Amino acid sequence: MAKLFHSDAADTYGDIRRLKWSDTEKVIARKAFEHALQKELHEVIQKAKRMAATIEQPSDLWELESFLAKRRNEIDRKYDYRYSVLPEVFVNLVREGRVSEQQLHGLAEDKLGYIHEFAKH
Amino acid sequence: MAKLFHSDAADTYGDIRRLKWSDTEKVIARKAFEHALQKELHEVIQKAKRMAATIEQPSDLWELESFLAKRRNEIDRKYDYRYSVLPEVFVNLVREGRVSEQQLHGLAEDKLGYIHEFAKH
Repeated sequence: MAKLFHSDAADTYGDIRRLKWSDTEKVIARKAFEHALQKELHEVIQKAKRMAATIEQPSDLWELESFLAKRRNEIDRKYDYRYSVLPEVFVNLVREGRVSEQQLHGLAEDKLGYIHEFAKH
Repeated sequence: MAKLFHSDAADTYGDIRRLKWSDTEKVIARKAFEHALQKELHEVIQKAKRMAATIEQPSDLWELESFLAKRRNEIDRKYDYRYSVLPEVFVNLVREGRVSEQQLHGLAEDKLGYIHEFAKH
C-alpha cells in the first residue's frame, strides 16, 4: 500500500498511540490546544449571548438550550488531551483552522507528518 | 378516616380521574392553565437573558444550559393538561401562587373543593 505521507511520520493508529512526547513538545501541544479551546469557548459564549438577547418566545429558549447542549458535547469530544489521541485531535483542529501548523512548530516529525498529511484530507 | 375536605369534593385519586368537565369548565381551566404557563415561560426567558448577559466564563455558559434543561423538565412535568390529572395540576399552581382561586371561579365544587383543600397543605 502506498504511504500517504512522509516516511518519518507515524502511519498507523497504533503508531500514533505509542508516540513519545518530550517535555518541550508537551508544552507546545498544551499551548496550541488551550488556545484553540478557549477561542472556541469564547465563540460559543458570544453566540449564546446573541441568541439570548433575541429570544422572543419559548421555542427560542429551547433552541438556545439545544445549541448549548450540542456545542458542549462537540467540544467535550473534540478537545481530548490524551497524548494517545492528540495527533488526531490536532488533525481536526488544523483542518478547521483552529490551530495553525505554525503553532505546532517544534513538534517532532513523527507527529507533524501525520498531522500535516491527514489535515489535508 | 376523617375526610380532609368538603363532602361534595372528590376524595380519592380515582374520583379525581373520573370527574366530568363541562365545556364551560374546560374554557375556565384552559385559560387559567395557559395564563400560568405563559407567565412562567416569560419568567424563564427573562432569567435566561439576565444569565446570558452576565456570562464571563465557560462555567457560566454550562450553568445556563443546566438551568434551561432543569426548567424545561420542570415545566413539562408541571403543565400536564389532561383532565384526569388537572385538579392535581391546579393544586400545585395554586400552592405556588401561579393560579388564583378567583381564576378558577366557575369550576364545579367537585374540583374546587379538592383544589382548595389540597392547596392549603
